[in-house]
Amino acid sequence: MQTPRTTPSRLAKRTAYDTETIYSILDEGLFCTVSYVLNGQPMAIPTAYARHEDRLYIHGSVGSHFIRSIENGASVCISVMLADGLVLAKSAFSHSVNYRSVVVMAQAEKVTDESECLHALTLITDHLIPGRWADLRATTDSELRKTTVLAFSLAEASAKVRTGGPNDDPGDVDLPTWAGVIPLETSWGTPIAATYNIAELPSYLG
Amino acid sequence: MQTPRTTPSRLAKRTAYDTETIYSILDEGLFCTVSYVLNGQPMAIPTAYARHEDRLYIHGSVGSHFIRSIENGASVCISVMLADGLVLAKSAFSHSVNYRSVVVMAQAEKVTDESECLHALTLITDHLIPGRWADLRATTDSELRKTTVLAFSLAEASAKVRTGGPNDDPGDVDLPTWAGVIPLETSWGTPIAATYNIAELPSYLG
Repeated sequence: MQTPRTTPSRLAKRTAYDTETIYSILDEGLFCTVSYVLNGQPMAIPTAYARHEDRLYIHGSVGSHFIRSIENGASVCISVMLADGLVLAKSAFSHSVNYRSVVVMAQAEKVTDESECLHALTLITDHLIPGRWADLRATTDSELRKTTVLAFSLAEASAKVRTGGPNDDPGDVDLPTWAGVIPLETSWGTPIAATYNIAELPSYLG
Repeated sequence: MQTPRTTPSRLAKRTAYDTETIYSILDEGLFCTVSYVLNGQPMAIPTAYARHEDRLYIHGSVGSHFIRSIENGASVCISVMLADGLVLAKSAFSHSVNYRSVVVMAQAEKVTDESECLHALTLITDHLIPGRWADLRATTDSELRKTTVLAFSLAEASAKVRTGGPNDDPGDVDLPTWAGVIPLETSWGTPIAATYNIAELPSYLG
């Protein structure tokens, strides 16, 4: 949703407020950075997350200073950035980055309903490793009591996207410098079994 | 350097303050998230950067709201996270992430010396694409006037690192669930030349 604090001063043409764009970036990203204010100072923590409908969930230890600092409704700025490629132009000035990013302005809501907590933990686990939750033993009450789940509304989220090749100045186009895009790719490596693993690699990891 | 605001409340054993660890993470990462406070609200922007000795540099348009918000010495929290792998345990609770992250608490210093500005732009360009700067035409005075370079001291930086396999509870070790690490890998894809490119791919991109 476009609000004064989600309206950029620069390159507004790169900004999107449609949920399809915002959700697709959040669903593809694995980690976000949660920024908050503590005693007037900016603080930031990278963490895992998951989206469900118009809410984003994170979790942490009930004793975590970070979690305790924001769980009572603090304002946060959550950012996710997918770097897709480096854009090489013929001048340093025209170099750029192809990226898809989302910024969410929201207040933390502590999830107190046990079934919503469990659902959020399921979502976070399966967001990182689709199919994992069904393969795990049940979470215990003790584990749940040690875990805080926080929810954030996506009502005030915006996306920023750059795609395509370089845009050189007309006067630079004929320079004999290579211009184009170097894609950045993220992939899964070969799984490394734990020393005490006794199972075959499951199909959802293959 | 360890100060009250770089001392974590959780998992202190994962925290490092040595410059070798901090610098190696900053030198491997490509993008950081700069968090700052605007009218009491947390804000965050992903951007490129480079490290030189004990300073970190970013740049932006002189007209950027972000740059103008912090250039007069605002406190920032700069975070860089390298995600190395997902750590799969036999319980959801014991799942983890292998990562290397750095958090820098600092005040923005606007670089006014023209040669330091140019040097910082060289560093940022060559940090993303080693060898690129030497292949580019000279930056013009007009381009320099449109660009603000900010420097940040690394005196108050800390690193947090997790490596290795899962640590399951003793009671879970014999469960028939696959346990281990799924590495996350980032790589460069095949370069895509611009429509107006007339150059061979240079060796530093090969």
